[in-house]
Amino acid sequence: MTLDALDTPALVVDLDVLRANVAAMAACADAAGVALRPHAKTHKSLQVARMQLAAGAVGLTVAKLGEAEVFADGGVEDLLIAYPLVGPLKLARLVALARRVPRLSVAVDAIATAEEISAAVSAAGGIELGVRAEVDSGMGRLGVAPCSPELVALARAVDALPGLRFDGVMTHEGQAYQARDEAELAAAASAACELMVASAEAIRAAGVRCEVVSMGSTATARFAAGHPGVSEIRPGTYVFNDRSQLAHGSAREGDLAAHVLATVVSRPSPAIACVDAGAKALTSDRMIVRDAAADFGAVAGNGWPVARASEEHGLVALPEDAAVAVGDRLAIVPNHICPVVNLFDAVTVVERGRVVDHWPVAARGRMT
Amino acid sequence: MTLDALDTPALVVDLDVLRANVAAMAACADAAGVALRPHAKTHKSLQVARMQLAAGAVGLTVAKLGEAEVFADGGVEDLLIAYPLVGPLKLARLVALARRVPRLSVAVDAIATAEEISAAVSAAGGIELGVRAEVDSGMGRLGVAPCSPELVALARAVDALPGLRFDGVMTHEGQAYQARDEAELAAAASAACELMVASAEAIRAAGVRCEVVSMGSTATARFAAGHPGVSEIRPGTYVFNDRSQLAHGSAREGDLAAHVLATVVSRPSPAIACVDAGAKALTSDRMIVRDAAADFGAVAGNGWPVARASEEHGLVALPEDAAVAVGDRLAIVPNHICPVVNLFDAVTVVERGRVVDHWPVAARGRMT
Repeated sequence: MTLDALDTPALVVDLDVLRANVAAMAACADAAGVALRPHAKTHKSLQVARMQLAAGAVGLTVAKLGEAEVFADGGVEDLLIAYPLVGPLKLARLVALARRVPRLSVAVDAIATAEEISAAVSAAGGIELGVRAEVDSGMGRLGVAPCSPELVALARAVDALPGLRFDGVMTHEGQAYQARDEAELAAAASAACELMVASAEAIRAAGVRCEVVSMGSTATARFAAGHPGVSEIRPGTYVFNDRSQLAHGSAREGDLAAHVLATVVSRPSPAIACVDAGAKALTSDRMIVRDAAADFGAVAGNGWPVARASEEHGLVALPEDAAVAVGDRLAIVPNHICPVVNLFDAVTVVERGRVVDHWPVAARGRMT
Repeated sequence: MTLDALDTPALVVDLDVLRANVAAMAACADAAGVALRPHAKTHKSLQVARMQLAAGAVGLTVAKLGEAEVFADGGVEDLLIAYPLVGPLKLARLVALARRVPRLSVAVDAIATAEEISAAVSAAGGIELGVRAEVDSGMGRLGVAPCSPELVALARAVDALPGLRFDGVMTHEGQAYQARDEAELAAAASAACELMVASAEAIRAAGVRCEVVSMGSTATARFAAGHPGVSEIRPGTYVFNDRSQLAHGSAREGDLAAHVLATVVSRPSPAIACVDAGAKALTSDRMIVRDAAADFGAVAGNGWPVARASEEHGLVALPEDAAVAVGDRLAIVPNHICPVVNLFDAVTVVERGRVVDHWPVAARGRMT
């Protein structure tokens, strides 16, 4: 089957590029001697997860308990839920999950949260859950302040709580996407790594074992992997890449493994092609980099921007000489691939221009 | 079951408010003597569709062929696909759909598109498909210019094409959301209606029957219904409403039928509560009104804004004296409810505070 036989909009994944991306990140981690624990939120796919594990990933990172359940169903034996799990409904599911996942760990950023998890786990009995302290290395989202007394107290508390094993510290250094160039990026990555390594040292100085120092972002992965004291990287977007990674210099055109295939449905004016991929296929996410243009994606190869998007309409701004007709197909590079994947029930897998498979987005829509 | 027993994030619909919204819009159309053809993209739900039809709606509007297929499966007998259908894959599905939907119509904005539909329909035989000309009444998305020679030529062409029945003109007057106050809104609605009525007159003057003059937006519905010459309204958002409708004055707090129930998972600082509803539950859509704040929703009742959102984290900005603890639940009013509904597999239906049902979002993710 060729791409012409594919109805649009479709999320198309180039298998060769995906394989190369998976291999390159695995090689990066391997060369540096750090563990690779990819964030599966980008792909939400058992097939991609298996490729990552086969290439040497130690396990997966997920954002949601519901995602962890899907990957556990798919046989993944080492999972980190990088999210504070709060409330009796979540904790009952966590206990059930811990019974069937050989290596399960969670992130916490407060002693009270850890205490509730410990209470649930020890009431169930026979479970030891890995716990990592989530540290705010500069993004200002959540997490404990690096090297702080609160962090050391959290580590101590987890270490002492029944049913829990304190594994170390983790962060998502998303602030690195604000870097303007490679030098700023390297500096941002290095600063975040320093804070995390120092945080681990502070915990160790308090007499608590702290094995893991885990950094998480595609942009910083190549810097973090080689930073002394870092033990693990958790990049996610690298499998597919997107326009933000391109703009940021963390991927090149040839590393783009996913795009949204769309059809031109109207030419309302010479300067505009309306395509059947709007915000329901591309999301309303802007690029996650500094000074990003306020558009919704761009056509692969020529960079024509999707200047406006309503739910089902994308308005592509055309140059004067563009020969684009109703019925033509355009491949659009999304600004941010992760939430785009979450809009599709399946991805279409292409190898050398031919459709070879459809992979369910198995963990799509696992809200809880 | 109470809401406490519901895992979060959840999309919660208040049945009493929904019923009142459905009844009020039906009464508005009825009083004005116009047809009501609600846009089902907001709810994507057979249950809500049936409420609308039971209240007097003549049929439904949908944005996608895939949505039309879902509602046809659910027994809806009158459907308008308000989108240009382009390409052989879509047209084969359209023909199959036309065989089982008693009253099916489509929108076109180009003669070539109409010709291809006609060719597919007449090759199949035994089908008469309703066609409406989509007119750009000021939004600048797609559609033919109002009252233009191109519009009259399109109507004439459709009227002459085998298998097609020219029904009239339609528009989505989304530009009305740019109005700053009630007076500007009334003026924008009136201007769009005038253009559409005049467009129909131009078509009739050319000797082509043009029964339908159809306006589509929740903001303008109450003005458009009473505008002389308008025959149909196609509001969508009114069933649930959202923060954009509130800001725009098209709905009051008591008309909000849907919210995202979220749990506070972290208190990273006194000014911030991190909740488990981020862009994967609220979308990255900003309000669709003029001068909207750059946030991602607001807590019902008190208006605390979701100031930042990453995929799984919403950061609610709190006032100084807010007593909010980890584990507390907050009901968040989304900026734009339609794409939020598309993120959930089901909505939780609540009546007087108790969970009474779960309705599948049956047409969710029908990308094509």
